[in-house]
Order: sequence, then structure tokens, then C-alpha cells
Amino acid sequence: MASEHIIKAYDEDLKRLKTFISEMGGLVEAQLDQAVQAVVNRDVDVAQRCIATDARVDALEQDIENFVVRLLALRQPMAGDLRNIVAALKIASELERIGDYAANLAKRTIALKDLPQVQPASAIPRMARMVRANLKDVLDAYVDGDTAKAVSVWKRDEEVDEMYTSLFRELLTYMMEDPRNITASTHLLFMAKNIERMGDHATNIAETVHFQEVGTTIKGERPKGDTSAFTVVAPPRGESAEKR
Amino acid sequence: MASEHIIKAYDEDLKRLKTFISEMGGLVEAQLDQAVQAVVNRDVDVAQRCIATDARVDALEQDIENFVVRLLALRQPMAGDLRNIVAALKIASELERIGDYAANLAKRTIALKDLPQVQPASAIPRMARMVRANLKDVLDAYVDGDTAKAVSVWKRDEEVDEMYTSLFRELLTYMMEDPRNITASTHLLFMAKNIERMGDHATNIAETVHFQEVGTTIKGERPKGDTSAFTVVAPPRGESAEKR
Repeated sequence: MASEHIIKAYDEDLKRLKTFISEMGGLVEAQLDQAVQAVVNRDVDVAQRCIATDARVDALEQDIENFVVRLLALRQPMAGDLRNIVAALKIASELERIGDYAANLAKRTIALKDLPQVQPASAIPRMARMVRANLKDVLDAYVDGDTAKAVSVWKRDEEVDEMYTSLFRELLTYMMEDPRNITASTHLLFMAKNIERMGDHATNIAETVHFQEVGTTIKGERPKGDTSAFTVVAPPRGESAEKR
Repeated sequence: MASEHIIKAYDEDLKRLKTFISEMGGLVEAQLDQAVQAVVNRDVDVAQRCIATDARVDALEQDIENFVVRLLALRQPMAGDLRNIVAALKIASELERIGDYAANLAKRTIALKDLPQVQPASAIPRMARMVRANLKDVLDAYVDGDTAKAVSVWKRDEEVDEMYTSLFRELLTYMMEDPRNITASTHLLFMAKNIERMGDHATNIAETVHFQEVGTTIKGERPKGDTSAFTVVAPPRGESAEKR
């Protein structure tokens, strides 16, 4: 990895690229914080801010792409650096998607505002904070080239998936108990799915960091805890609908 | 765009890259066909084939990335070609996600197999065929450098979004009418969302093709018909639960 570059400006460019990614990562972290805050406090203003931030994240991704194209054209980097540059492009794309999901979380908070609160809602910020921690760690892993940290994020995604699958079941049960819970629970289901997908994208970044540093993929099958696509929940017999 | 390359091998490489994308596109189209077939016929074998194809799609994306890195290192392409090469990388990533969504559709077909059939299910293959047509057109637009076709795909995504939003409401109503519909309807909701996301990724490809050919983004705001994140559906008063 430690090839020395003769041209100082080139080194500066590579550093600049890393700073770009950190900046974008920081913005997406802020978006996720806003989304959590919006969920916890049912705060529409914060939700709107989170949605608004998305345009800046998108613009930053475009800036990074333009910067990469210029860097490739001007510096004609060799193999090792090329890997890093392509990695930055991929990470920017993953961050952009995480930002999208955060904005979608915020949008659904607005829909939930005037609906009856359903109890499993409290799991959403808990799950989001888990992914938030993973995102922070994977961005640190990228900046420090810390593969151990990347692997640890990669492993921890299983917890997020498991939490999602259990929340999926719980929300379906809630819907069955009282039809008045259905709209709110459906939004919560999609919010949970959004968070689970954010976790996947953090995991993708972990894989990219690992590949960039070590040149191999993370050993072993990717842990897969989200089995919700196969989940079937039966309504409780007889009494469910009368409860309301 | 039509800069002439002195080295014939370089031209061959650029052609090879385009063939790579077409190959990957064809595979993802096949996956989507399999997913539709699995939904229509409740066919678990076809669903399994669709899920299995995903590994080949992922491997192809990795091949394309490796090929691009080699191409950048060996040929040191200039600005116009660089744009095309970065575009290919982006399109491969969009196709990979479409493949993921197709596999998820197939997985949910397996969960639906033993559940009572709910009527809005018929909208799923209709919606999927719409996206399938958009995917075909945008791949053609890429191969032929046909910006008009790319713009037309971009515009048609609004129909997909609208269909999704209306299906979202319909499925929520179904859930409210009978709790026994809830699990099946939830899977259908996620299936509809998967298809809507596939449509978004086809739209992203359309934008990339347009940018690559013309050097500007598609004019005007991206049409946004998916308002489901803000949707609230109230349960029918009194009689809903007794229907079963």
C-alpha cells in the first residue's frame, strides 16, 4: 500500500478524496441522527431538515464522482491507488443510499405524527442507533485503514438483521390485534426495513474497506440474520378483531 | 464523443466493457422474468432458480469492476472515455441491486405459497412487467447511446410509482378488512416496494446513459409519483373485522 508518490500534488489529491468521503459520511451520520430524533420526538421540523439534507448528500456524491474522473485523467494512478479510488467511488454510492433511507425514515415520521402510537415503535430508534454506531465505526475504519474494525462492523450486522426479523413478527401481530394499528405498523415496518438496509450498506462499506486494505474479501459467508422474507405470522384465533 | 483511438486493443476493451454490461443486463432481465413467473404460478422451483441466479449477477459485477481497474491502469483513458468507464461501473452497480430485488421477490413468493391468496396480488406481475419493459429499454438505450429512449424510460417511472402508491392503499384496506390477509398483504407490500425500487434503479441507469451521451442531466425535476411514505389509510368503521 505504501508506494511513494513523486508528485506531492497527487498525494494531496488522494488525501482530498478521503476528506471528501469523511465529509459525506459526517453528513449522512447527521441525517441519521436527525431521523432518530424525529422518530423519538415525533418532530416534523427535524424530519424536514433530514429530508432537506439529502440534496446536499446527493450533490456531494456528484462532486466526488467529478473529482475522481479528474484525478484519473490527470494523475493516471497505478494499480494500488486505482483500487483506493474505485473504493472511494463505491463508498460514496453506499453513503448516498444510506442518506436516502434516512430521508425516507423522516418522511414516514411525518405520516406517523397523527396516528395512534403503537408500542413496537420504541424499537425503531434502538435499531437505528445500532446502525448509527456501525456507520461511525466503518467510517473510522475507512479513515484509519483499520480492517479489524471493518470486520467487527461486518459481523455486527447480524444483530441488526435479527432485530429486524423479530420486529417484523411483532408488528404483524400488532396489526392482527387491532386494525387501527395497521397504517402505523406498516410505516414502522418500512422504517425497520430502511434501517436494516442501511445496515447492509454499512456492511458493504466494511467489505470495501477490507478489500482495499488487504486485497481479499472478508472470510466466510456473510452473516444473514434477516429471514423476514420467509416469515409467516398467523392471526390469533377468534378474538383478535373484537379487541377494538 | 467520437474520438479515434490509435490502439485497436483499447477499442476492443471498451467494446468488451459494453458487452459485459449487456451480459449482466440480460441476466438481470432473466431474473426478473423468473420472479414474475414465480409470482404468477406460485412456482417455488422457478423462485429458487431466480435466487440462485443472484450469485452469478454478483460475480459479474465483480468481474466488471476488475476489468475496469485493469482498463484504467493499462490504457489510461482520457476524459470522454473515462466518463463512459465510470458510467459502466455505476450501471453495473444499479443492475446488481435490481437483481437483489428480483431475488427478494422470489423469496417472498415462497412465503406466499401456503397463505390465502389476496386479490391485489394480481397487480404485482403487472407492475413487474412495466419495470421489465423499462429495464429492457434502458439497456437498449445504453447499447445504442439512444438518449431519447433513456428519457422516455425516465418519464415512465412515474407510472410505476403511481401504481405502487395505489397498491399500497389497496393492500392496507385489505389488511383492515380481514386479519387473515395481513401476512400475505405485508409480503405483497414489500414485493410492490421492491418493484418500485427496481424502477428507480432503471431510472438511475437512464440518467447515467443521458449524462454519458450528452454530458448534462435530464432536464426538469425527476417525476416523483411514490407518495406512499406519507400515506395514511383509516380502517373502515365497525364492520371490517366481522367479515371473516
